[in-house]
Amino acid sequence: MSKGIISKEEDYSQWYNDLVIKADLAEYSPVRGCMVIKPYGYSIWEKMQAVLDKMFKDTGHSNAYFPLLIPKSFFSKEASHVEGFAKECAVVTHYRLKNDGNGQIIVDSDAKLEEELIIRPTSETIIWNTYKGWIQSYRDLPILVNQWANVMRWEMRTRLFLRTSEFLWQEGHTAHATSEEAIAEAEQMLEVYADFAENWLALPVVRGRKTPNERFAGALDTYCIEALMQDGKALQAGTSHFLGQNFAKAFDVKFTNREGKQDFVWATSWGVSTRLLGALIMSHSDDAGLVIPPMLAPIQVVVVPIFKSDEELDTISEYVKGLTKELKAKNISVKFDNRDTQRPGFKFAEWELKGVPLRIAIGSRDLQNGTVELARRDTKTKESTTQEGLADKVEQLLADIQQNMFKKAFDFREANTVEANDYEEFKRLLDEQPGFIAAHWDGTPETEQKIKDETKATIRCIPLDAKEEEGKCIYTGKPSNKRVLFARAY
Amino acid sequence: MSKGIISKEEDYSQWYNDLVIKADLAEYSPVRGCMVIKPYGYSIWEKMQAVLDKMFKDTGHSNAYFPLLIPKSFFSKEASHVEGFAKECAVVTHYRLKNDGNGQIIVDSDAKLEEELIIRPTSETIIWNTYKGWIQSYRDLPILVNQWANVMRWEMRTRLFLRTSEFLWQEGHTAHATSEEAIAEAEQMLEVYADFAENWLALPVVRGRKTPNERFAGALDTYCIEALMQDGKALQAGTSHFLGQNFAKAFDVKFTNREGKQDFVWATSWGVSTRLLGALIMSHSDDAGLVIPPMLAPIQVVVVPIFKSDEELDTISEYVKGLTKELKAKNISVKFDNRDTQRPGFKFAEWELKGVPLRIAIGSRDLQNGTVELARRDTKTKESTTQEGLADKVEQLLADIQQNMFKKAFDFREANTVEANDYEEFKRLLDEQPGFIAAHWDGTPETEQKIKDETKATIRCIPLDAKEEEGKCIYTGKPSNKRVLFARAY
Repeated sequence: MSKGIISKEEDYSQWYNDLVIKADLAEYSPVRGCMVIKPYGYSIWEKMQAVLDKMFKDTGHSNAYFPLLIPKSFFSKEASHVEGFAKECAVVTHYRLKNDGNGQIIVDSDAKLEEELIIRPTSETIIWNTYKGWIQSYRDLPILVNQWANVMRWEMRTRLFLRTSEFLWQEGHTAHATSEEAIAEAEQMLEVYADFAENWLALPVVRGRKTPNERFAGALDTYCIEALMQDGKALQAGTSHFLGQNFAKAFDVKFTNREGKQDFVWATSWGVSTRLLGALIMSHSDDAGLVIPPMLAPIQVVVVPIFKSDEELDTISEYVKGLTKELKAKNISVKFDNRDTQRPGFKFAEWELKGVPLRIAIGSRDLQNGTVELARRDTKTKESTTQEGLADKVEQLLADIQQNMFKKAFDFREANTVEANDYEEFKRLLDEQPGFIAAHWDGTPETEQKIKDETKATIRCIPLDAKEEEGKCIYTGKPSNKRVLFARAY
Repeated sequence: MSKGIISKEEDYSQWYNDLVIKADLAEYSPVRGCMVIKPYGYSIWEKMQAVLDKMFKDTGHSNAYFPLLIPKSFFSKEASHVEGFAKECAVVTHYRLKNDGNGQIIVDSDAKLEEELIIRPTSETIIWNTYKGWIQSYRDLPILVNQWANVMRWEMRTRLFLRTSEFLWQEGHTAHATSEEAIAEAEQMLEVYADFAENWLALPVVRGRKTPNERFAGALDTYCIEALMQDGKALQAGTSHFLGQNFAKAFDVKFTNREGKQDFVWATSWGVSTRLLGALIMSHSDDAGLVIPPMLAPIQVVVVPIFKSDEELDTISEYVKGLTKELKAKNISVKFDNRDTQRPGFKFAEWELKGVPLRIAIGSRDLQNGTVELARRDTKTKESTTQEGLADKVEQLLADIQQNMFKKAFDFREANTVEANDYEEFKRLLDEQPGFIAAHWDGTPETEQKIKDETKATIRCIPLDAKEEEGKCIYTGKPSNKRVLFARAY
């Protein structure tokens, strides 16, 4: 616990919490379950946003903004939607405070709203109410809109990034003329999320469908990407929903199709959130701190000078100036940690804690020898290397680190994905080797619920690439033709 | 009213409203005073955000995120702050809805919060409560943080972009070891805003200080930039506040200074909002629609092909492809409007309405002659020009348009800024030539209030560059040593 971080082995949950706090990513606020995202944590989120936003725009989407508050009556319009969100929403009932005359600030009972307003837990209702005014004919379709926003779900058990009452996210809401087009959109966005997870987060994911039990409230089909954390628990990293005509019907959004007939509009929605920061931390970090994939690291390279005098620092600084210029020309972000208030060892530990992928240390002897010391965060290996061609070498190393982190996470997942063929084996594996368990299931919500109640494992998804295979449900023995993926999950 | 937009002369207020709606920038939502920012309006906001965010980062600031909800008790801690915001805030009192058994969704009275939560109208209180945990010593200072967020003020009279119950903004919140440093920060950020207004928005602004009456609730000094709209009314476009130690005292945020003594921390806050979209529209647009300064235009150049057959369109498209590539290499955004469902005249009017700075029309004859037709949005002038060197010419023209728009707005402001030396003249000028009126004032809140009550004109600011000049207050005749700027305002 040298850095105030407990070891992963000792207490994974506490390790996660310690890490979030000590690496200056986030902290709890005085408001129940709400977090403050600190500058360092937010800078990673900004990197994620920039990449995702470009992916959304490259696939034809535009951003827009819809109101934070949703009239209560809107919720009631889609039955399963209100069922899903009513139990955990923040309700605005008044629009004014006043001084009670004794210096106390109280709610002004004269300023009660006629209809209560809900802080959006998600925006389908307010958006489909708006789309009604935007859509008359098939010429107005598709609408491909995304929103970056804060949302609120009054969670009872919260956890920084993974489950907070308020969180930041993006929510895409699209409108289409045909069912096929909407399904293609939902599938396309799932692929965008999977691409982001694998190639930026360095996080291998299983693409799949949720069972009806686990679907988004109001969806006909929920696609998801599921990842495995280092403790063997699964984490849902993104979802994309085919909403059918449910919201169009609830808000009476019709259009004239190419044949001149009236039809309800087809919908999708899809989102990822600050939860991805939790996924990043949980999947790659170690007891020394964060390990951030180079593609998302706010600082990719830190340079630490080793010096005993101002003159030495000056000489080193001169060299670092040139190096920094070269690296910046390659779009590599560099931090030169030239503080004279801290010793190199302290700085090494600090940047390790913050997960900077590559560290360059350079002292006077290095300058004489034309060398630097390079340390990789992912493998914790060091090497001395020549200054000649260093920028190219750094670029190559960052690519290697990105790839290596993915491979490590991929190998971990492969090693922790097993098959179970009966319920006893299933329960034993769950405890002995936490991870994904591929098993046969009879397809009923009842069986799924019973397994969940007895083992806390849920069906994470029906993988899109699941093979056709005759088998028997591990719980009821009824026939099944493909394996689904079970796990305990965040 | 060919586009459904009333003329500016006939009804300026209605013209503004028509324009916002018809140009697809925003619309009202079913939630009182809250707006939907449509994709085209949001794309301008995104451009503004990108420029401002870079300016903030270049001046050393980082982004972070603080909770949406603020405990009611926090507000009461800074007396003038609560006074300023209590009358117009949305209050969350419950955290659950339920089904009443008859299919009605109602607020669950069992889920009442112990302490009511306020949707942030601004975040000083929650942020200073957080900073308490971040600051122990001068080594922890300065803290230079900005937040992009939504805020809510329950306005009774709303207007799209200019005054809405919910709006988007950024709020900077900085903490410093000395008063001087905090004042320098507040002044620096004012200059950032002025730079943005003048060089991106093409909007000349007066840099000034607010009178105590008009200060931010909780500030010792409020700096502002004030702009003049085309109807002669003023608009506050950004503010930067020196908060002294008010919030540090309210939240007990002390630090150990270099001398080893405890002191309260010094603060600033500063913000601009989606109101800037209102300023952009009101200062530059005309009866044909928006006029967007090239530096903020989501589409800088639109290319409209004039064709009678698919073959003609193909030939034109081939040329446009090459041109687009050249323009994109210069970072110029281009839209090729090759729709075959609309005629050129319709497209011309549409892009005029949307304020695209430059239009290129090209037909078969142009291709034969090696020419195109160029139309400027700002001057509404057209010219035929050669295709040779077109990309360079476009680049130059966009720069010219930007400059010309600023000059036009600057000349307008100069022509509508006058001096008044007595109250009769002041009142006459206010009605005859709405604009800024520079006049002497005795420095008292009472006189300011009386002038406001009688004329609806307020002191927009005490210009930072106001000359020392002996004079007499236009209202009381008492001595004054500089002129302040009056106007009726948004």
